[in-house]
Amino acid sequence: MGDQLNRVKVFAPASVANVSCGFDVMGFALERPGDEIIACRSEKPGIRITKVTGEGGALPTSVDENTAGVAAKKLLEHVNSDVGIELEIYKKMPLGSGLGSSAASSVGAIVAVNCLLGSPCSRNELLGFAAEGERIACGTPHLDNVAPSLFGGFVFIRSQQPPDVFELDCPISLFATVVHPQIEIKTEDTRKILHRNVSLQKAVTQWGNVGGLVAGLLKGDYGLISRSLQDVIIEPVRSVLIPGFDDVKKAALDAGALGSGISGSGPSIFALSVDKKTAESVGKAMQDIFTKVGLENEVYVSKINKAGPQILEER
Amino acid sequence: MGDQLNRVKVFAPASVANVSCGFDVMGFALERPGDEIIACRSEKPGIRITKVTGEGGALPTSVDENTAGVAAKKLLEHVNSDVGIELEIYKKMPLGSGLGSSAASSVGAIVAVNCLLGSPCSRNELLGFAAEGERIACGTPHLDNVAPSLFGGFVFIRSQQPPDVFELDCPISLFATVVHPQIEIKTEDTRKILHRNVSLQKAVTQWGNVGGLVAGLLKGDYGLISRSLQDVIIEPVRSVLIPGFDDVKKAALDAGALGSGISGSGPSIFALSVDKKTAESVGKAMQDIFTKVGLENEVYVSKINKAGPQILEER
Repeated sequence: MGDQLNRVKVFAPASVANVSCGFDVMGFALERPGDEIIACRSEKPGIRITKVTGEGGALPTSVDENTAGVAAKKLLEHVNSDVGIELEIYKKMPLGSGLGSSAASSVGAIVAVNCLLGSPCSRNELLGFAAEGERIACGTPHLDNVAPSLFGGFVFIRSQQPPDVFELDCPISLFATVVHPQIEIKTEDTRKILHRNVSLQKAVTQWGNVGGLVAGLLKGDYGLISRSLQDVIIEPVRSVLIPGFDDVKKAALDAGALGSGISGSGPSIFALSVDKKTAESVGKAMQDIFTKVGLENEVYVSKINKAGPQILEER
Repeated sequence: MGDQLNRVKVFAPASVANVSCGFDVMGFALERPGDEIIACRSEKPGIRITKVTGEGGALPTSVDENTAGVAAKKLLEHVNSDVGIELEIYKKMPLGSGLGSSAASSVGAIVAVNCLLGSPCSRNELLGFAAEGERIACGTPHLDNVAPSLFGGFVFIRSQQPPDVFELDCPISLFATVVHPQIEIKTEDTRKILHRNVSLQKAVTQWGNVGGLVAGLLKGDYGLISRSLQDVIIEPVRSVLIPGFDDVKKAALDAGALGSGISGSGPSIFALSVDKKTAESVGKAMQDIFTKVGLENEVYVSKINKAGPQILEER
């Protein structure tokens, strides 16, 4: 057993779910922010969470109440291992921001534990464990943040149950801008306010845009991506919870973004641009509006993260 | 003017609109059946329809009431020409079958007239004229049959108004089977029975399948195409108008089809298969069910028609 790893440190990225028209079916991974997770072998069988830093200070360290703990525990159960593992969770991104914070911790934990054990599980198996982590965070095993955080790039979720997830390889460069205003919105509430029924006409418009966005990404067609980044169903309802939303979005488009919308269930707002310079100008323009309405905010500019999680250290 | 053409004969293909999940946004062209249209120069300015054969015997020959006449007239108006043109319409496919019969005639007419005039109009301009023809046939300028008939292959319609149409180049071979049972369903009625509202949950399922089908075609992934050929919104409502629908669909899948559904608004039923042999067995299985329920029927087996309309003669 001289070759076995004792300690693995992993970075797992934040992600933008929904992507305007793609409610519950699309997401992409960012290069930053993200969480860092360390998994170490220990004597006592089972998972323990020994440290949670950053904004995560408020998170439970009980394994069964923590998304990362639940996901890692599912992995150990799956491989039927009685190994002992201690997890340290370094939260490096805001909670409740609409950037997939809980998903990043789950993904980081299972990638670290899988690596520590010599990679017994496939990526699709890992996806299932991370989904169980999400069940703790939001009641259902949603894949729209864990899938992009785990796979990297743009991900499409044809079906949540049974999971049917695939990557959308995009041959052109795309940069994301995400602005996170300091307000709290509960994911639970953002689901509750959605209308249970939608008009067939709007549904057709939406699936036209979903097909357009998927084709635009796969074909590498900026114009088609831009025209398709429209959400006629969810955004009109949820955006009222985000002060200044319309102006922030307009500012992003005026500054040259291909499109803009709510990141996940908010309050963060994302935009996509063709290059870094534009993405930075877009970020500045979006920040100015939030600052004007008196909301503290942070901006992240990042290439689409095609690699997904990264192993930072292993020994 | 010695080089000018005096007579052009064009074949324009039938098409399958909707394609299960893709209500109002997708369609593909068949190699057969289709209509043949002859356009000849004549002395008297304007369009005249001098002949309509086949099942088209019942169609109006008044230019303003005939889809092909309206489309061709729009073209002449656009190029501001006082040329005289006589159209002969050889209907070689059933009317009211859900195979885009009126669209095939419109497309054939404008492609023939455009060729006769030395091709002054672009394909997107032609699409607009054909859409005006559809307005006569079904009240609104729908693109879901004219676009595939005119462009060939699989076509996606992101938006009808303004038109935003693009091709889905599929790198793998696909064969279509279409069975047309001899019953009459009015397109108008098939629209009326649709529910005006749908549940958000079903809408998400549908746009998951739309994205899956678009990606499956572009990536050339038979499994993904097959899993995505599901319609949870329109088919459950419209299929009750087609006797034996559930059994015909089941027979198609049992015989090896990737998927099956209503062609356009019916009553024809289509299936997609990976090769010709399977597509033929699928057709046989589908026919057997219709025959069992006492419905006369015709079957068409065809590769996806990537070429679209064909100029058969020009002189």
